[in-house]
Amino acid sequence: MGNKRDEKRAELRKRLIEAAEDQISQQGIDGLKARAVTAQAGCALGALYNAFEDLDMLIMHVNSRTLARLGAALRSALPEQETSPEEVMQALATRYVDFACENHKLWIALFEHRPPEGHEIPEWHRQDHAVLIEVIVAPLKQLRPDLDDQALVLRSRTTFAAVHGVVLLALQGRFVGVPMQDLRQEVSALVSAMTRGAHLAV
Amino acid sequence: MGNKRDEKRAELRKRLIEAAEDQISQQGIDGLKARAVTAQAGCALGALYNAFEDLDMLIMHVNSRTLARLGAALRSALPEQETSPEEVMQALATRYVDFACENHKLWIALFEHRPPEGHEIPEWHRQDHAVLIEVIVAPLKQLRPDLDDQALVLRSRTTFAAVHGVVLLALQGRFVGVPMQDLRQEVSALVSAMTRGAHLAV
Repeated sequence: MGNKRDEKRAELRKRLIEAAEDQISQQGIDGLKARAVTAQAGCALGALYNAFEDLDMLIMHVNSRTLARLGAALRSALPEQETSPEEVMQALATRYVDFACENHKLWIALFEHRPPEGHEIPEWHRQDHAVLIEVIVAPLKQLRPDLDDQALVLRSRTTFAAVHGVVLLALQGRFVGVPMQDLRQEVSALVSAMTRGAHLAV
Repeated sequence: MGNKRDEKRAELRKRLIEAAEDQISQQGIDGLKARAVTAQAGCALGALYNAFEDLDMLIMHVNSRTLARLGAALRSALPEQETSPEEVMQALATRYVDFACENHKLWIALFEHRPPEGHEIPEWHRQDHAVLIEVIVAPLKQLRPDLDDQALVLRSRTTFAAVHGVVLLALQGRFVGVPMQDLRQEVSALVSAMTRGAHLAV
């Protein structure tokens, strides 16, 4: 009987995550309402708080799902044949832009969600963010064979954040963001400059 | 008498902006309460809505003040003696990091404030964001004399957004952000790679 109960619970959690994902993809995390999620999942409001500690925990599960999809998208963008590190970086950046554009509100939720003051982010959720960085390490190592592993991870974070900044300000429609029609070309120019200058940099 | 009234009104607006600035610098825009602002400014709640259309309009005035201070900080970072475009870019990026660290919540308010759906951002407030970009155009023109004015402005936005992305993820303490103790060095490495690779880029 215990197994059956665990199964039902897992099934309910899955339905709740899928409903929350659907809600966030339409309205973003600011508009996420527990009642709308449970209505869509076909369960009582209280069932949500039995299945998850709170709405923030549910959002983290949705974000981990998005990260897994994004990670798979980035890995599948890696060229099959051996090629230059710049081409690898360009392929990854292009796929990142595509994913952000196609999953706008789920993608922005990754960077907008903040758990309430005093709540720690669970370690499993932290770890799920590694997919954003790990694909960058190999091409960066080719560009900067002089850097040790720790410095490479750090520089991978910096490289990611630079591309992310351009995509973020553009998709948010910020005053200083580049217009959407120029986004792909500008990200490509940034990656080109960053990679060609990487070995010249200090 | 009209003049006296205008003067009093201008003085009240100034007091409200200063009170809101103080509140935002402590609690951020999410925690901004009209009552706390009017209490600090020493006026009735209704006076705020006489002086400003709504709280969003007051936030935009605070943001414009922050942009003016940031613009002055960036201009004063420009080297007095003629130097390489890379050194100019490095000086600007360093000052940007300093300003963001020293004015954390006022700075983040520039990028987090969204007016309510359907409300247009006034043109004067849009224009006030030009300070983020205009200092970058001259050194970039030295690096890329082949680009026309429009392409230069676009590339300046991209360059700003790249540095901004690294600062943002670090200061937000995001999982993939670089740790604060590495931020200055990583921004410097990014600027170095971007500027050295700029003329090699396509």
